[in-house]
Amino acid sequence: MRWWGWGTDDAAGVLPPAALPLLREELGVGGEVRGPVALDEVALAPVALGEPVLDRLRALAGVRTDRQARVLHAAGKGYVDLVRLRAGRPDGAPDAVVTPADPDGVAAVLALCAAERLAVVPFGGGTSVVGGLTPVREGFGGVVSLDLASLDALLRVDERSGTATVQAGVQGPELERLLGARGHTLGHFPQSFEYVSIGGCVATRSAGQASTGMGRIDALVTGLRCATPSGAWDLAARPASAAGPDLRELLMGSEGTLGVITEATLRVRPVPASDRYEAWMVPSFAAGVEALRELEQAGAAPDVARLSDADETRFSLALSGATDGTKGDLLGRYLGARGVEGGCLVVVGWLGDPDAISRRRERAGAALRRAGGAGLGAAAGRSWEHGRYHGPYLRDHLLDHGVMAETLETATTWENAFALHAAVADALRGALQARGTPALVGCHVSHLYPTGASLYFTVVAAAAPPGAEIEQWLAAKQAASDAIVAAGGTITHHHAVGTVHRQHVEPDLGGPVGVAMLRSVKAAVDPTGVLNPGKLLP
Amino acid sequence: MRWWGWGTDDAAGVLPPAALPLLREELGVGGEVRGPVALDEVALAPVALGEPVLDRLRALAGVRTDRQARVLHAAGKGYVDLVRLRAGRPDGAPDAVVTPADPDGVAAVLALCAAERLAVVPFGGGTSVVGGLTPVREGFGGVVSLDLASLDALLRVDERSGTATVQAGVQGPELERLLGARGHTLGHFPQSFEYVSIGGCVATRSAGQASTGMGRIDALVTGLRCATPSGAWDLAARPASAAGPDLRELLMGSEGTLGVITEATLRVRPVPASDRYEAWMVPSFAAGVEALRELEQAGAAPDVARLSDADETRFSLALSGATDGTKGDLLGRYLGARGVEGGCLVVVGWLGDPDAISRRRERAGAALRRAGGAGLGAAAGRSWEHGRYHGPYLRDHLLDHGVMAETLETATTWENAFALHAAVADALRGALQARGTPALVGCHVSHLYPTGASLYFTVVAAAAPPGAEIEQWLAAKQAASDAIVAAGGTITHHHAVGTVHRQHVEPDLGGPVGVAMLRSVKAAVDPTGVLNPGKLLP
Repeated sequence: MRWWGWGTDDAAGVLPPAALPLLREELGVGGEVRGPVALDEVALAPVALGEPVLDRLRALAGVRTDRQARVLHAAGKGYVDLVRLRAGRPDGAPDAVVTPADPDGVAAVLALCAAERLAVVPFGGGTSVVGGLTPVREGFGGVVSLDLASLDALLRVDERSGTATVQAGVQGPELERLLGARGHTLGHFPQSFEYVSIGGCVATRSAGQASTGMGRIDALVTGLRCATPSGAWDLAARPASAAGPDLRELLMGSEGTLGVITEATLRVRPVPASDRYEAWMVPSFAAGVEALRELEQAGAAPDVARLSDADETRFSLALSGATDGTKGDLLGRYLGARGVEGGCLVVVGWLGDPDAISRRRERAGAALRRAGGAGLGAAAGRSWEHGRYHGPYLRDHLLDHGVMAETLETATTWENAFALHAAVADALRGALQARGTPALVGCHVSHLYPTGASLYFTVVAAAAPPGAEIEQWLAAKQAASDAIVAAGGTITHHHAVGTVHRQHVEPDLGGPVGVAMLRSVKAAVDPTGVLNPGKLLP
Repeated sequence: MRWWGWGTDDAAGVLPPAALPLLREELGVGGEVRGPVALDEVALAPVALGEPVLDRLRALAGVRTDRQARVLHAAGKGYVDLVRLRAGRPDGAPDAVVTPADPDGVAAVLALCAAERLAVVPFGGGTSVVGGLTPVREGFGGVVSLDLASLDALLRVDERSGTATVQAGVQGPELERLLGARGHTLGHFPQSFEYVSIGGCVATRSAGQASTGMGRIDALVTGLRCATPSGAWDLAARPASAAGPDLRELLMGSEGTLGVITEATLRVRPVPASDRYEAWMVPSFAAGVEALRELEQAGAAPDVARLSDADETRFSLALSGATDGTKGDLLGRYLGARGVEGGCLVVVGWLGDPDAISRRRERAGAALRRAGGAGLGAAAGRSWEHGRYHGPYLRDHLLDHGVMAETLETATTWENAFALHAAVADALRGALQARGTPALVGCHVSHLYPTGASLYFTVVAAAAPPGAEIEQWLAAKQAASDAIVAAGGTITHHHAVGTVHRQHVEPDLGGPVGVAMLRSVKAAVDPTGVLNPGKLLP
């Protein structure tokens, strides 16, 4: 992973040719290039840990204190993280990156850190976009990044029960490779798939692009093991229970603040025999939402179901070169001939055996046609699939060219979806317009549930001058978060709380009583407060 | 509800004629009748609360201190409860039955009880079979039964989101009537359906007879409101979230120890256009389990799916008069002609439109035939449906005739199901045989999940002499609970923890760390410990 951005240079591709002209025209983005500083120009504080403590850590785990390791582990991949890193400011970078070989090593490191009051930031794939990896030093003798990379084994597949038990540090592609060799898949494909760790997914309650069909990670977990400063917490796999509160649901989403997940047992499925993706255009966001709601509530939703609003549709098509935005282009003429005006893009996909896919496609097609939609075919769907993990690379290119680019997401009931959509888009546009940087704000519905859906927003604007970018984004983020809370959405559907959402999380926890409960749990299991301080709790 | 047993005299029916001869022959059950004492012979301690406190309660809620109310609220409907009540020993019966008119009244009563250190036992339908209503007086100035009967309104139906918001005290049939008038159903039908409250279902994580298709109660809840001594806890409805731990999952299963649920928002569905139940016979429990597993893992399970083991099948058929247990009877000849030897009964059911049911039936029938099964037709299925809520009445009749009768349940992975089945059945038989009262032990699989299933055991034996019945049952229960824990099952799949399972719940909570967390939550929200003391926590 590049310390200042996403992935590797090899895989980064190029900015679509249509992007800069579009951004120049619509947002006044200038032409200057703002690359990251060189690694040896990064301002890195000296290691705050003395050799005696480092030696004690070295007796328990691999320990790195070099520049590359400390900077790479200093932040996640949110816009604020990237702006800081590119400017050479990995604020509070960990003093040591510690890599235990096994769960006992994790437990031993936690015990040492608790005794020495060293803050521990668990590190899986390093992909947090909510400040989940932000080092918080205040009140601690140092900060240790606890990298779970060595816990990467597939421990067991239970063929009859359809579960796999894996260590927490295994990353997305490797997990699918290991499971695939046994004929199984987890089917969990967040946009960050190429780098996420399974422990990180569980700790942050992630959702994947096929989660409408396959279920969010929290619907796939049946058992968890966790190391805490108070000892092991071992929630054995079980299909269901009435034995009190489900404490898996307390550990899931705890973001390293209650313990470090070392092992997960997850529902797996047979590798699907085939897949099919296709795109549709529906005349309006409202019509598309209603078609998806109808399918989901009838138990007939596609496994992948994404509906872009009109603005997101317009940028997506313009960026892809499929349209120049006028009715004179090929796509416009095709849709016009089918009576589809304006238009919102739908991507639908199915995994499974060809007969089942065929039956399910027919049903979804009927609903989309009833909504006034027209099919754009499998090539357009495949094109989405090919680009499904490209977003973070695209953002790095945009940052290179002085563009602010970030995403945020929420979820709500079907009844409340339109009001929430409007409120958040307006808040983002208003906040950025007020600072003199008009924004493009697009949104898509990406995860369907019987009682509601998620809304995923993308925001693009000309970046403020160097040094003022973070303030610019935080103003927009604050406006969006306030709007989400006021409109009754959850503050995050699948990105977690981290540092970024903790001042807005109280309503999601049910108010002050819920916050007090969570604080009491934290105090019980982590009395010295070393586990990922500053995250999650308001 | 009869204070000493289930339901009403009108609805009690009669003991099937085949029952007593069977029990006499197999278990040596004698002929004596052991009826309950008369209500005015019940030994009831004086009300421990003074008039000043009672007056303060009366200012907040309806208050009853009469014999009928206190005895009816003194216990649930487990075997131990019934034995005590029938003998006129409602140990520790509440001093007052308090019925607030609304959620504010609930909050006010809790505040008063916390200030006065009065134990509060929330009371919904009064159907707990795990001691969830057992009054615990030690350390308190008195015991108040907090009856939620007046919180019985359907507050809102959100048609688009497919949810209904209801007050916690509404009971099963009334809820279905209110929803049905709007064209909806919750589809939650535990055996106790006729008396359960929805708040009680949520607080105990109940499962219904159609939960394989409709989902357990914990899969239907999207939002909850709760009164606690520390204030309101309001978990707004949302379809999904990554905003930290899901605290709904902490409240569900908390059994009144963390707060009193006052309102729930639940997923509802359109009232199904039709239903269909049918019975099958498969040659063995193993063959039946495999067929159900295959269907469930393929997403093709019936909405109701129950598989009895050979012993349960034998008693059920004998009780129903369908067979005399020999190959000479009609059923035996029918099955013999189809090559089905021995045999385990399967009941399957579907809810929905007739075409969909027809497709799903075909698929299930194919799997059951592959397992060597033979269809017994719709009449046998209908017969199960007609008797689906009769179990508790049957038990009252058995107790009248000196029979010990109780149930217990667990769940585990498919891989572990056979070992757990054998271990629990052996433990129950062994413990009762050792006391000189051989037992009939039957089991059925009643709830299917992708990764496992529930096992529901019924135990019948000659009751020990009056005064020794409880000790007899507790010995069997202890053996079964030890076997469940040793074999890796959950201590309860849908009956909750109460007082009965709390010494065996630690493994379900993940060990001492989980217990400490739950204790800390309890202390944070209920510092004086007045909320349903003695339940849930070991």
